Amino acid sequence: MQLKALVFDAYGTLFDVHSIGARCEQYWPGHGAALSQLWRTKQLEYSWLRTLMGRYIPFSAVTRDALAYACEALGLPLDAARSEALMQAYRALRPYPDVPGALEQLRAGGRKLAILTNGSPDMIAPLVEHCGMTKTFDAVLSADALRTFKIAPQVYQHAVERLGVEAAAIGFVSSNGWDALGAKNFGFRVWWINRQDAPVDRLDAQPDGILKGLGELPARLAA
Amino acid sequence: MQLKALVFDAYGTLFDVHSIGARCEQYWPGHGAALSQLWRTKQLEYSWLRTLMGRYIPFSAVTRDALAYACEALGLPLDAARSEALMQAYRALRPYPDVPGALEQLRAGGRKLAILTNGSPDMIAPLVEHCGMTKTFDAVLSADALRTFKIAPQVYQHAVERLGVEAAAIGFVSSNGWDALGAKNFGFRVWWINRQDAPVDRLDAQPDGILKGLGELPARLAA
Repeated sequence: MQLKALVFDAYGTLFDVHSIGARCEQYWPGHGAALSQLWRTKQLEYSWLRTLMGRYIPFSAVTRDALAYACEALGLPLDAARSEALMQAYRALRPYPDVPGALEQLRAGGRKLAILTNGSPDMIAPLVEHCGMTKTFDAVLSADALRTFKIAPQVYQHAVERLGVEAAAIGFVSSNGWDALGAKNFGFRVWWINRQDAPVDRLDAQPDGILKGLGELPARLAA
Repeated sequence: MQLKALVFDAYGTLFDVHSIGARCEQYWPGHGAALSQLWRTKQLEYSWLRTLMGRYIPFSAVTRDALAYACEALGLPLDAARSEALMQAYRALRPYPDVPGALEQLRAGGRKLAILTNGSPDMIAPLVEHCGMTKTFDAVLSADALRTFKIAPQVYQHAVERLGVEAAAIGFVSSNGWDALGAKNFGFRVWWINRQDAPVDRLDAQPDGILKGLGELPARLAA
C-alpha cells in the first residue's frame, strides 16, 4: 500500500537526548555520560510503570522525577536551579545531524509528516520551535492527549485518527526498538533506526526496515 | 491494623536471580555477571512492555526471550541446549542466606504466608519445591492467573481475593523498588528490601519500612 503519512518518534529518533550530556558534564565533571544514560533509562521505566499502575503524570514530570532519581543514585547533588536548567536543556536538544536534510527531502515527497511522542506539549512544542521545525510537520501529536504512554496501542491509534490516514498507509520511524515493534504490532509500516547496532527486541514483530540514520530513509522510500 | 498475611515477591526478594551468574560464567567466562544483569533488565522490560501492548506470554517465555536478546547483545553464542540449561537453572535459584530462617520465624507468628510473583507456574512451582519451601507458604500466587504482570493493580488484588484478607491487613515484601511502590499505591503495608542501598523510586509512594534483608523483618514486626 502507498504510504500517505510518515510519523516520527521524537526523543532519540529526531532529537539526540544525549546531547544534554554536555550540560550534565559541566555540572558534574566526569559523570555527564553516566547521568545522561541513567536519566533516560529511568525516564522510560517510570513512563511504563506509571501506565501499568494507572498513575499518569505528564512526561515532563516523569523526566524531572527520573533526573532526581538518577542524581541521587550517582551521588550527584541536584538543586532546584540545576534541575530547572536541565529541564530547559531538554527543550533545546540537538537534532541528529542528518535529520534536518532528511525531513526536507521527505517533505518534498508530498506525504504528511508528523511527530508522535510521549513528550507532553510543554516539552515538545518548545523543542520543535527551538529546532526551527514548526513548519516541517503537519501535526505534532503527544500521548499526553490520552494520558498514557507508548507502547499502549491507543497512542498509535491517536495518529491514525488525527491524521485521517489508515494504519497500513502510515510509515513510522523510531530509534527505540520497543517503540518500533509496538508500532509494527499495531499495524504501521516501520523503520527502526538502529544507530548502536543493537539486536532486535523479542516482542513478536520485526521492523520492515532497519536504518543507520534518518538520512537513509528518502532513498529507501524511493526504491 | 493488625497484619493477617505476609506476601512476598519471589525473584530478587526470596531467590537470588544473580545466583544464575555462576552458570553463565561457566559457559561464557568473563561475561557471567554482565549477562545475568542484562538478562534481568530485559526480562523486566519485556514484562512491562508486553502488558502495555496487550500481548501477554508467560514469564517463562519472557525470560527465554530476554536471555536470547542479552546473549545476542553481548555477542555470546547461545544454542538450544544452553538456553534450556539456563532456564532449568532458573528453577533452581538459591534463596538468599537469611531467607529460610526468617520465613521459619515469620511462620511461627501465625500469619498466612504467600508468594505473589510474575513467574508462571512452570517456573515458580519447581523453584519453591527445589528450595524445600512447599509447606512454608499457604499460597503461591502468580500473575499468570490474570495474564498480566506487576505492577498492574489487579495482580495485587489477586492476593487479596485468594487469601481472603483485606489489603490493609496484608504486609508485602519486595526487593524490587517499583514492585514495593506498586503494592504501596495499591494499599498494602510495604517493606522494601534494599540490599544495594539504592534510592527510593519516584512513583508517588514511600515504603513503610526499608530492610537490608528479610532477616530483619521478624524483629520489625515484633517491635
